[in-house]
Amino acid sequence: MIAAPALRVRRDVEHAYIIRALTQVGVSEAQARDVADVLVAADIRGIESHGIARLRWFYVDRIRLGTINPAPAYTVVRETPTSTLIDADNGLGHPVSILAMRKTIEKAQARGIAFAAVRNSNHYGIAGYYAMMALEHDLIGMSSTDSTHFAVPTFGRDKMQGTNPFAYAIPTGEEPPFVLDFATTTVTYGKLEVYERKGLKLKPGWAVDRNGAGTDDPTEARFHGALTPLGGIGIENGGHKGYGLGALSEILCGVLAGGLFGTDLSLPEGPEQRGGITAHWFGAMRVDAMRDLADFKRDMDRELRMFKESAKAPGHDRIYVAGEIEHEKTIEYGRDGIPLVEKVWSDLDAMADEIGIPQLERFSVG
Amino acid sequence: MIAAPALRVRRDVEHAYIIRALTQVGVSEAQARDVADVLVAADIRGIESHGIARLRWFYVDRIRLGTINPAPAYTVVRETPTSTLIDADNGLGHPVSILAMRKTIEKAQARGIAFAAVRNSNHYGIAGYYAMMALEHDLIGMSSTDSTHFAVPTFGRDKMQGTNPFAYAIPTGEEPPFVLDFATTTVTYGKLEVYERKGLKLKPGWAVDRNGAGTDDPTEARFHGALTPLGGIGIENGGHKGYGLGALSEILCGVLAGGLFGTDLSLPEGPEQRGGITAHWFGAMRVDAMRDLADFKRDMDRELRMFKESAKAPGHDRIYVAGEIEHEKTIEYGRDGIPLVEKVWSDLDAMADEIGIPQLERFSVG
Repeated sequence: MIAAPALRVRRDVEHAYIIRALTQVGVSEAQARDVADVLVAADIRGIESHGIARLRWFYVDRIRLGTINPAPAYTVVRETPTSTLIDADNGLGHPVSILAMRKTIEKAQARGIAFAAVRNSNHYGIAGYYAMMALEHDLIGMSSTDSTHFAVPTFGRDKMQGTNPFAYAIPTGEEPPFVLDFATTTVTYGKLEVYERKGLKLKPGWAVDRNGAGTDDPTEARFHGALTPLGGIGIENGGHKGYGLGALSEILCGVLAGGLFGTDLSLPEGPEQRGGITAHWFGAMRVDAMRDLADFKRDMDRELRMFKESAKAPGHDRIYVAGEIEHEKTIEYGRDGIPLVEKVWSDLDAMADEIGIPQLERFSVG
Repeated sequence: MIAAPALRVRRDVEHAYIIRALTQVGVSEAQARDVADVLVAADIRGIESHGIARLRWFYVDRIRLGTINPAPAYTVVRETPTSTLIDADNGLGHPVSILAMRKTIEKAQARGIAFAAVRNSNHYGIAGYYAMMALEHDLIGMSSTDSTHFAVPTFGRDKMQGTNPFAYAIPTGEEPPFVLDFATTTVTYGKLEVYERKGLKLKPGWAVDRNGAGTDDPTEARFHGALTPLGGIGIENGGHKGYGLGALSEILCGVLAGGLFGTDLSLPEGPEQRGGITAHWFGAMRVDAMRDLADFKRDMDRELRMFKESAKAPGHDRIYVAGEIEHEKTIEYGRDGIPLVEKVWSDLDAMADEIGIPQLERFSVG
């Protein structure tokens, strides 16, 4: 067990702080709670890029600038016993997505399978959160979201798709649930920032320069180039597959929801950007439409253990299954607090001063 | 236009020949026709690895050896208004999959969305065929299949998953439909064979040796090593994403269907292997659950054209969208005949002699 470093925050303290900050800028208590649920879930699962680190820049500042509507009035645009389409009225992405997934879960429970889409929305945090909502109901959960564009298509040099993640959550018995939540790019934009800060060269295939050729220069990639689809540049290592998956996400989200898509999403990421450009997709299906739940869960445990018990490659002593690392982080950070890097603390402290709320309390056990 | 080479076959001739061969070894006319539909669709789309090249080794020989049941009696194990689970009785994978997808389409038309799984089946050909069945009904179609194991998990050296493809087919207006059909490995097993035959070294990240370390030796990879998941070896280029997708396929197919999974699929591929080890998954959803169909199709055309019209990388003058190359092949091969390599002709001629049917007729227009 590693002793908790000094700069950690307790999950309930972080949760309350997010609610305090968002209600301070005009978000309702209920909606702020939804956002806090999703951001704390990201942090406690170790996905620090998508947690409270985004509170200031992606949410509070955009509300203060008028980019995001803090008090949206949702419209259910179309609804059937197995589907829901919601217009989010340019509100925060998390509350409307929780609503859409709840409806999807209820409909899947009643009908076996259901889906939903949301348009005119904003960043919704980790895709895995919504897929995982299905787990407590013993359903398989799915989600995807589009985003502003960071990546080139295969053989292209314009940014034409986002990091467009897909998430799938599948119930298990004794094993942690299978939670696959992955961006359809090779690496994330955040990785370029980290490599630039550390003065490191990018690995081959991660990014292209302004001309669409491979680059190892993180600054060129960040400011003039783009990310690559999963599989890298060209088709040699399957880059066309990641490109296809990213396009699929934008189709299932933006096009199917009747939201924005294509070059309307080719905007720089920033607080002043146009709001409501994001769209999401959700799905849920009943395991017991196919098999008795107990049998399925027993076999899921067997399946996952077989992966983990299989022979290891040189230099490795462990094989993980999807969601396992995040499950272990959840236990560790729930016990020891969530570590936040210094830049996040200073951002949050500055934000607290700006909007007039108390600073986030450090959980110092060191 | 390229003049048709001598060694081509007309699509209707290939289709009739497949029916003739399969009925000769005890398959019903109706089931043989289903197989012919899928194999000709693969060949005419340019996916030559999954077309008539497999007729002898994957289907006819396995029937003759008793590995595959030529006259299966399907059992609908569980059925709801939105779902179907079928036991294929160790029959050919294609007819039962067409049945499962037809049921899924009918249920999605009636209920908005539906899914199906099939167990105790065999190779079903290209995943894209079943997804594309949804297109003529203006539905979004989906499919996946598991297979015997060819690939290592991230940080592993045992073969623990197949090439486990996913396919999605999405209707369009004037543009060819969006058809994404991809193996979740970096490259296919067939690519190792081609590189070995040509005396070429494998590209970094395509395969591992017997110890799970990267290798550029196609012979070592084929006989002692394994393929890598999409994203390659380790996690640096996202190999854990391809591993997660491959595992997802085996879970949605083998585990959800109550079929085989895990080390039960870690068998050498061959005619004498155990039959009925494969399982499949299918899904369909109504576009008009979300949007009016005409609006969706118009926007799909816009979306796909924006990708294609975006700026090209150095050395490239064209950007494709998923399914476009295959659509163009379908036009070309429908007109000029389907080219088959010499090894396929000689295999088929030997098979024809063995089972006592006329040899496949060459379409010589050269």
